[in-house]
Amino acid sequence: VVTSGASAAAVEKGEYRHFMQKEIFEQPTVVAQTLQSYVRPLEEQVALPDMDFDLAGVKRVSIVACGTSYYVGMIGKYWIEQFARVPVEVDVASEYRYRDPVMEEGQLALFISQSGETADTLAAMRHCAEAGLTTAGIINVPTSTMAREADLLMSTHAGPEIGVASTKAFTCQLAVMAAFATNLARAKGRLPADEERDIVKHLQEVPQFMTEALDRDGKIEAVAQFVSKARDVLYLGRGPDYPMALEGALKLKEISYIHAEGYASGEMKHGPIALIDETVPLIVMAPSGPLFEKTVSNMQEAQARGAQVVLISDDEGIAEAGDDVVEYIRMPKVHPLIAPLVYAIPVQLLAYHVAVAKGTDVDQPRNLAKSVTVE
Amino acid sequence: VVTSGASAAAVEKGEYRHFMQKEIFEQPTVVAQTLQSYVRPLEEQVALPDMDFDLAGVKRVSIVACGTSYYVGMIGKYWIEQFARVPVEVDVASEYRYRDPVMEEGQLALFISQSGETADTLAAMRHCAEAGLTTAGIINVPTSTMAREADLLMSTHAGPEIGVASTKAFTCQLAVMAAFATNLARAKGRLPADEERDIVKHLQEVPQFMTEALDRDGKIEAVAQFVSKARDVLYLGRGPDYPMALEGALKLKEISYIHAEGYASGEMKHGPIALIDETVPLIVMAPSGPLFEKTVSNMQEAQARGAQVVLISDDEGIAEAGDDVVEYIRMPKVHPLIAPLVYAIPVQLLAYHVAVAKGTDVDQPRNLAKSVTVE
Repeated sequence: VVTSGASAAAVEKGEYRHFMQKEIFEQPTVVAQTLQSYVRPLEEQVALPDMDFDLAGVKRVSIVACGTSYYVGMIGKYWIEQFARVPVEVDVASEYRYRDPVMEEGQLALFISQSGETADTLAAMRHCAEAGLTTAGIINVPTSTMAREADLLMSTHAGPEIGVASTKAFTCQLAVMAAFATNLARAKGRLPADEERDIVKHLQEVPQFMTEALDRDGKIEAVAQFVSKARDVLYLGRGPDYPMALEGALKLKEISYIHAEGYASGEMKHGPIALIDETVPLIVMAPSGPLFEKTVSNMQEAQARGAQVVLISDDEGIAEAGDDVVEYIRMPKVHPLIAPLVYAIPVQLLAYHVAVAKGTDVDQPRNLAKSVTVE
Repeated sequence: VVTSGASAAAVEKGEYRHFMQKEIFEQPTVVAQTLQSYVRPLEEQVALPDMDFDLAGVKRVSIVACGTSYYVGMIGKYWIEQFARVPVEVDVASEYRYRDPVMEEGQLALFISQSGETADTLAAMRHCAEAGLTTAGIINVPTSTMAREADLLMSTHAGPEIGVASTKAFTCQLAVMAAFATNLARAKGRLPADEERDIVKHLQEVPQFMTEALDRDGKIEAVAQFVSKARDVLYLGRGPDYPMALEGALKLKEISYIHAEGYASGEMKHGPIALIDETVPLIVMAPSGPLFEKTVSNMQEAQARGAQVVLISDDEGIAEAGDDVVEYIRMPKVHPLIAPLVYAIPVQLLAYHVAVAKGTDVDQPRNLAKSVTVE
């Protein structure tokens, strides 16, 4: 018998109506808690657990995961390639195992799973270990099979996640991924100390910005009334906001049963824009910054075809592109590195309030299990 | 003024109701025509155009494209990694340019575009050329900008494609991709002569199997009546059938305005299965073979939750799993290598007949342009 370390408080809803809601609001705390293990504030450095291999020897990273964790992998690819200049390949676990992937010397195989028991991901980890690859895991349950079997265990400290739709585990995975990318960059000699100080500073700002984002709860609940009337939704983003759009769509699917689909903004004109009419809301994630203009241009093409847009952006973005949107959600202005962690909040709250408005069973959505321990 | 080489016959509809229909039925001919340039039947070898670099020196391939061409890239990754054991990265063009991708010595940058003018893809090609990478293009319009600028031009011989939704260009791109993967495998010393002979044999069978698949037109039209009543559809596949599921969903979106979404079969239980009820048909592509059991098991999970399934498979597959499906489309039994080329036919015909049943403008769907020459 394994005794859970979870305190009673951690598995009760307290003042919240649903576990998912409680877990969304816990994020500033559990992300801070997770970052404590990966950031040394005095040294202004990130740090990983001890490992018995040399990070500097990593020439390629393959990331394998399922569902929400897979989107963490996609965001991780942006970060690892940008900071460490190490090529990254991301696969869904059920595909990776069966496609006879190329494995190379110096390849680190990184697996992401909340439960540490996800059947496809675990099987992929064992497949890589048998092939002689070094394995690493970003895992929330420290007593799980994957946590025990990984050569390098990077724990998330999200605490028990009860809601079937993952929220706090997702952002804690992102926090660990950012720390991993930074460490790898330093190990590869590609991160000057001042840049690392900068990253540490931004990571430490995450909990406070998450709290600011949570303060938009009332507005997001109002926007949810609009979205809840739709049967179909498109979610758009560029760069790391593309996986965030996929995650936003998945959350809506999971708990509100709205058919939401995420797309890279620039791909919309290659097909999905044909779906657009006034009955299909378009949710656009576009923080101000270098990708903003391009995303807004894609958004405006859709508006010209009748799209009802919900824009998630900051003051600057809303001032520039907010005039013709149906609704907007105002986010704090944050550094691009931490934007995915902060923009996760409106994405989660929106799905949550849409589900509540529709009266679905938020914590136990139909057809879904919390951990998928079959293939 | 550029004079088009297209004969009058090639740009008239003839006996067909729509250009798209005509182009679907042209595929056995134009794929055969394309393969003639890449297969030497007497030598039982594949061949590429002359090039001024050494294929054996290719250590990594990055594939960049948009829309339907991007799915050719995804299928190419399966083939290139399987045969040549060279790692492949696939990106949508609008994402690739802005994510500061890692480029390495020995990397071949491969671009796919019907028109050769797709703005995002062309910009990505120039970006790679400026960075000093060798570029290759799989292009249908030989006078296009990308055809002129690529270091290695691999032409598809699909002839002019008039329908906005790509069909014959797609399968010709696949044929060239198969030849490229085979050539690369031989150049890397990873393809014994008997395996190459086997591949050549299977490629030569494609036109005949396509014709057999086209013979299912009447049945597919009947199935389309069922699908046309849906507002939302999920499309599932594993391995190379996963990109085919994405392509099938894109075709339905483009011309029938049904919100169809493609998913890797194994990912369905990580979220999208929550969407499933009796109003959301599930189209499952599952040729008999090593991945069949797994896909069918995902299909049955969905059936247990009320899913109305359309199964696209061969005799063996339908005998094994066709009992509880609402409709099936029977395909010839083909080698896994050429399955994507043959399974493209029902995917295209299904979208075509659904659009006709719904009375949409098949050749000029709303909101879409044939070539996207803006970003």
